[in-house]
Amino acid sequence: MDRTADLIADTVAAVRPLDEAAMRDARELQDRLTKPPGALGVLEDVSVRLAGLAGTCPAPLPEPAAVAVFAADHGVHAQGVTPWPQEVTAQMVANFLAGGAVVNAFAGQVGAEVTVVDIGVASPLAVAPGLLPRKVAPGTADMTEGPAMTPEQAREAVAAGIEVARELAAAGARCLITGDMGIANTTASAALIAAFTGLPPEAVTGRGTGIDDATHAHKVEVVRTALRRHGLLAGTDPAADGEPVPAPRPAETARKLDEQPPTSDASSVPAAGRDPLEVLAAVGGLEHAGIAGFVLGAAALRVPVVLDGVIAGAAALVAAALCPDALGACVAGHRSAEPGHSAAVAHLGLRPLVDLELRLGEGTGALLALPLVQGAARVLHEVATFDSAGVSEKDAGA
Amino acid sequence: MDRTADLIADTVAAVRPLDEAAMRDARELQDRLTKPPGALGVLEDVSVRLAGLAGTCPAPLPEPAAVAVFAADHGVHAQGVTPWPQEVTAQMVANFLAGGAVVNAFAGQVGAEVTVVDIGVASPLAVAPGLLPRKVAPGTADMTEGPAMTPEQAREAVAAGIEVARELAAAGARCLITGDMGIANTTASAALIAAFTGLPPEAVTGRGTGIDDATHAHKVEVVRTALRRHGLLAGTDPAADGEPVPAPRPAETARKLDEQPPTSDASSVPAAGRDPLEVLAAVGGLEHAGIAGFVLGAAALRVPVVLDGVIAGAAALVAAALCPDALGACVAGHRSAEPGHSAAVAHLGLRPLVDLELRLGEGTGALLALPLVQGAARVLHEVATFDSAGVSEKDAGA
Repeated sequence: MDRTADLIADTVAAVRPLDEAAMRDARELQDRLTKPPGALGVLEDVSVRLAGLAGTCPAPLPEPAAVAVFAADHGVHAQGVTPWPQEVTAQMVANFLAGGAVVNAFAGQVGAEVTVVDIGVASPLAVAPGLLPRKVAPGTADMTEGPAMTPEQAREAVAAGIEVARELAAAGARCLITGDMGIANTTASAALIAAFTGLPPEAVTGRGTGIDDATHAHKVEVVRTALRRHGLLAGTDPAADGEPVPAPRPAETARKLDEQPPTSDASSVPAAGRDPLEVLAAVGGLEHAGIAGFVLGAAALRVPVVLDGVIAGAAALVAAALCPDALGACVAGHRSAEPGHSAAVAHLGLRPLVDLELRLGEGTGALLALPLVQGAARVLHEVATFDSAGVSEKDAGA
Repeated sequence: MDRTADLIADTVAAVRPLDEAAMRDARELQDRLTKPPGALGVLEDVSVRLAGLAGTCPAPLPEPAAVAVFAADHGVHAQGVTPWPQEVTAQMVANFLAGGAVVNAFAGQVGAEVTVVDIGVASPLAVAPGLLPRKVAPGTADMTEGPAMTPEQAREAVAAGIEVARELAAAGARCLITGDMGIANTTASAALIAAFTGLPPEAVTGRGTGIDDATHAHKVEVVRTALRRHGLLAGTDPAADGEPVPAPRPAETARKLDEQPPTSDASSVPAAGRDPLEVLAAVGGLEHAGIAGFVLGAAALRVPVVLDGVIAGAAALVAAALCPDALGACVAGHRSAEPGHSAAVAHLGLRPLVDLELRLGEGTGALLALPLVQGAARVLHEVATFDSAGVSEKDAGA
């Protein structure tokens, strides 16, 4: 416990706000490049944030890139929230390792390395190249019956995520990408998003792999049951209707969360004033914990991290609650078709780069965004200024 | 004249509808791959269209890719529609050839070759590697005073675009990308889009490089003046208030245009029933003509063409009016911040892949979409099926 708690605390302490001077330099440079000011739209903002993260302008190119696919199982699977059998998690891990999944195809397309992290797959996995064995537990417990994780498991999984970020960066990665695999993980994501945004279960619970109406209605009720059990259902009195409420977090963290663009009445956000790790342990997954740590680890290293879809969005809510400045390292790669994902990115104030109704996970949406992020960064390195290229500027009078 | 008219007619005649059998095969294959059905959203549609275009499933990978930047000047520049001096067109061509523009940075990021086509730059350009000299005229005439091009010039520029597509494909390109450069070309684009959609000038005329309110208001009036002069202003009687109306086009083409998703009352579309090349000559640019030919040439070769922003959108309206089936080869790379672009893609029934408020042109938005198109195609080549990977499918009962 001491080791993991210390690692998390040290990592959070190492995260710095975006560097204002570097961001100002990047904005000024954008305006001198041979293009109309602002013509690169959202990508100019990305280049400015990357400079702020690096603390220098231009920021180093975010390449090579590495995607870490955090794989885990979920006790809530027993509640019948999905028609897919739990063994698909391990089968898909084998598919990733064999290079046969969409994450492999997209990673090949954009030149990223794929690493699979067994943070909590139910079945034992054989040693294999490309697989990092970091199993904290063989899946979570059923969150409708008790906490999904013990506090120790949640911390261990966050710490493992921090270490994965460090290992990939040590191996040369200059851009990290989140990936995930876990049958039933959109259920846990919905619960986390409801807890951290205050939105009701029906607003943040989606169809995951494409479940039918009856399964979806049941899934919403499962999320509601879990939230109520843990005192995390907005609009209810947790003391009367759930587990005992733990001591509030330091005011600083709670205040920062409240400063985010509200997607619901901030005073009704159930997770506000709770220890984010306790909320994570109650209704999250081991891959959420791993990805939250991965984001913190990237931020501490000043390496950008491109977030995939709803699982990453839920994990980023945890990371931001632990360390609001960690958001400075995050780029929302895409907007998932899951409604909870839009709620999460709105709450975090992030703008997704790709919006194509993807709902696959694995890191696929974030991988598609990688060339956009890299292109944004490359502009500040390679594009000529009006002066250097001898291009006339517009008539100042018009 | 005979040669160019014949080349255009032969090219149009060579374009085939998307192959239904190949598209069905692609849809069925998508559903057997190791992912939930439909989980790749819009990209599944892209993969299906590529198969239909190729006439086989999976379609060949759309790589390597080549972007052709069609550069031209515009007589309407004299009307004060932009604060940028006309010589910037030639200066930016030099910047492209030196590798210093955003199109070069993005092409480098995604692995595309850049070719610049001088289809109508006002000043003479020195021979240079990477520059295709295809100058039809040193810029267009002022469309507010008469037709921007003669019929011969319009045909020559379309034919040049067809030949550029053939040359790049002959050199190995398996995906073509449109690019453009030409100070004042958003003004001509707005006129074309108004003519082909029936929308009023104020709805399709944008701020281009970022002009101020007064210049924008003036630009709208310039577009209105040009449209009225050529009998292309919706809601006016062309016989009473413009040039003589030429003979209607064959009913087939007009009917196909009317079948597109309406963005205005189809009966009020000024270009309906007019020869698309005559409309192009009246208010278009030489780069619009070149890009329209480039699209036709790509479609005839069954090579996909990724469209950039508003200039490509306007040119695609011309190409679709000449040959509706040419749209089958087109992928809308991105949605430009220019309002006329949204009108054009809606009229064409295309869904842009990237939507990041870009308004630069050069091919930059389409280049950012290239990895998405390539990733979509790659999935059908590389991703394992449930059978081949030994992954369980979902419980059919749920």
